[in-house]
Amino acid sequence: MNKEELVELIKKGFLDISKLKLLLSDMNIVDIAEVFEELDREQIIQMFRILPKAIASDIFAYVDIEHQQTIIEALTDSEIGEIMNKLFVDDAVDFIEEMPANVVRRVLKNVRPEKRKQINQILQYPDDSAGSIMTTEFVDLREDEKVREAFDTIRTIGLNKETIYTCYVIRRDRMLVGVITAKDLLLARPSNRIGDIMDTNIVFAYTTDDREAIADLFQKYGLLAMPVVDKERRLVGIITVDDIVDVIVEESTEDIEKMAAIVPLDESYLKTGILQHAKNRFLWMLILMLSATITGTIISSFEDGLMALPILMAFIPMLMNTGGIAGSQSSTLIVRGIAVGEIALGDILLILWKELRVGMLCGLGLGLVNFIRVFIMNNNDWKLCLTITLSLFCTILMAKTVGSILPIFAKRLKIDPAIMSAPLLTTIVDAVSLIIYFSVAKLILGL
Amino acid sequence: MNKEELVELIKKGFLDISKLKLLLSDMNIVDIAEVFEELDREQIIQMFRILPKAIASDIFAYVDIEHQQTIIEALTDSEIGEIMNKLFVDDAVDFIEEMPANVVRRVLKNVRPEKRKQINQILQYPDDSAGSIMTTEFVDLREDEKVREAFDTIRTIGLNKETIYTCYVIRRDRMLVGVITAKDLLLARPSNRIGDIMDTNIVFAYTTDDREAIADLFQKYGLLAMPVVDKERRLVGIITVDDIVDVIVEESTEDIEKMAAIVPLDESYLKTGILQHAKNRFLWMLILMLSATITGTIISSFEDGLMALPILMAFIPMLMNTGGIAGSQSSTLIVRGIAVGEIALGDILLILWKELRVGMLCGLGLGLVNFIRVFIMNNNDWKLCLTITLSLFCTILMAKTVGSILPIFAKRLKIDPAIMSAPLLTTIVDAVSLIIYFSVAKLILGL
Repeated sequence: MNKEELVELIKKGFLDISKLKLLLSDMNIVDIAEVFEELDREQIIQMFRILPKAIASDIFAYVDIEHQQTIIEALTDSEIGEIMNKLFVDDAVDFIEEMPANVVRRVLKNVRPEKRKQINQILQYPDDSAGSIMTTEFVDLREDEKVREAFDTIRTIGLNKETIYTCYVIRRDRMLVGVITAKDLLLARPSNRIGDIMDTNIVFAYTTDDREAIADLFQKYGLLAMPVVDKERRLVGIITVDDIVDVIVEESTEDIEKMAAIVPLDESYLKTGILQHAKNRFLWMLILMLSATITGTIISSFEDGLMALPILMAFIPMLMNTGGIAGSQSSTLIVRGIAVGEIALGDILLILWKELRVGMLCGLGLGLVNFIRVFIMNNNDWKLCLTITLSLFCTILMAKTVGSILPIFAKRLKIDPAIMSAPLLTTIVDAVSLIIYFSVAKLILGL
Repeated sequence: MNKEELVELIKKGFLDISKLKLLLSDMNIVDIAEVFEELDREQIIQMFRILPKAIASDIFAYVDIEHQQTIIEALTDSEIGEIMNKLFVDDAVDFIEEMPANVVRRVLKNVRPEKRKQINQILQYPDDSAGSIMTTEFVDLREDEKVREAFDTIRTIGLNKETIYTCYVIRRDRMLVGVITAKDLLLARPSNRIGDIMDTNIVFAYTTDDREAIADLFQKYGLLAMPVVDKERRLVGIITVDDIVDVIVEESTEDIEKMAAIVPLDESYLKTGILQHAKNRFLWMLILMLSATITGTIISSFEDGLMALPILMAFIPMLMNTGGIAGSQSSTLIVRGIAVGEIALGDILLILWKELRVGMLCGLGLGLVNFIRVFIMNNNDWKLCLTITLSLFCTILMAKTVGSILPIFAKRLKIDPAIMSAPLLTTIVDAVSLIIYFSVAKLILGL
């Protein structure tokens, strides 16, 4: 049975509890969570209560935030405690961060003290830091434990899949000294000492490290999990690869939004209100609108020339658009190259030389097409032709240069290169392409 | 010692073999691979030969493609065989795909027949398919095996970390019937029958499935690995999360490139030659340049009006730019929303209604600022003011509408919405904003 059919049956009340339990037992918890999101309030709570206790908190972690709130508000204090105590700390934090204050108070009141402390600790880390995405559930071993004891520890803790395949070896003062994988343990003899077979070459993060940099490390080293330590290198948590996958997607989305001159949204498109949408787009629109005063002034200053040969006006959008796209192609490639670590600041001359040649090739090709088109459409006026074509060629070269240098300058000045992309580039390329156009026109057409 | 220091020492020949071996033994293989990339040909080969055999192929997998070629070309046939036989099939395929024919022949000749068959099989799957990114190394168990036997199998196969934590249960005909995690095995009794404790609710992919859709499944279900089956549901390989992380980054890069009107690059920015760069950018530049004929024609058709009131010319770039950014903000959000699965085609009316209101808010705000600016800068000419402001407002509304609808139409027509973003949107918004402008000017200013 697929999800839609199940939702249909539940909505119509066709399923009694035992049949529903049977159906759910064979489903993936993520899919069950999706079923919840299709139901109305009463049905959600009814259904949540019949779930086996063992999986209820797992499913809760996958339900979306509104339905999580619905469920929590309907549960008793002791039920809340049960769910929250079983929930991974990072999932609990994700949930609590989105809840109104009264719900947060009620939730924290019913969590056992130790877990409450862990939750409060993670809540204090700044957004986008390693501390904010870590979880505090992990398997920690001691150097003088034996492999056989390690297996007992793993079996007792019995944690979820992501958190058990790498174990962390700590000293008495909780300093991280090594890692050991479940594979190493399986291949070792039961009597081996952990300290003898652990790997002391550890890739780790500090709680304050930026989550994007951590995602890069996961990618570079192909990690499944990474330990997080405090300033004194004491182990405080781990970050698992499933959270990193989310980070990578979110960071790409942020970059894409910045490149399109949007302040990144905190929520998904549909969940963001229209006021917030307007707010996140208004600033850059305003800046671009006002900066167009410059182009307006340039055009006005050449008014006499344009009045003398009005056909020149018709080519302004073509020049500005072609320049605009030439520049944004270059800047987009550089911004992305920097983001994924393929381009370093030292590559600036290499890039400039590359873009100049690419610009030359594109400029020659487009110039040729343009020459033919203008020549045919404007009664073989070769002087006009030459003016437009030469301006186009210079504009493309200029746009490619500016587009490739701006992101690198931004990075050098520690400004986010993605932000440079749309607004500043457009302003510069528009203004300079007009100056090029009118200068060439004066020169060739003598206006 | 950090990487730079080590490279320096090796280059200067300050390290004898035993000291070098000692230093390398404490380093992460990914970092060793990076050291290779800094050395010249002779040193690379010398250093590669002193590596412990056990890790040489692991390191080889992380070295970049040019240096892989350098190494392979310098090795003897039997050394090549040793490396390739130990290499994971997916890493071997990644390497072979980039090599010239003569290297490929030599490599395949020295691989053992069974592995050669697996490599050839994967090479046949189309790019971007599940088959092309899977590996054929995995632990397969039978339903009537006992847990204790399963551990023996895992120990014997002794595979790498990604491939051991989920085992796949197959029937005699290799049909996939269940999965079981190392955690389940650890928590089970040694005498348990695999068939009794395996999970039959499997998230799997077919060899021909698109890798982007598979990445979505990894994200949705928080997977570490996914089995890949053929048409008859026989298990042929697995995909591991580290490869999925790469897929997610690459797919985001492709989307970003498409949105910036670039045909996606196959290689990184720096490794792509200038001819290829020019080729991948030329087409959309050409299309945009030619489509600007439309705006040119519209401007020419209003030449008399512009000659009568030349100041109108100065506002054309402002209108076109503000419209352009308003449209690209909307289309970017929708394109990305579709890509990450937050927006469905059925949301079109919801989106349109949202964008209209956002457009209205932004339009009112920008209109107000614009009105004041134009009023002050143009001698309190309120008719001109009204013309510009009204045109601006209508342009923003139009751009937001077009920008939000185009990607959804594209998706409906099964065209990649990212491609729609820049070129078609720019053309439409530019042309329509001019028509709006000139119509409003005729109406209010009576030109």
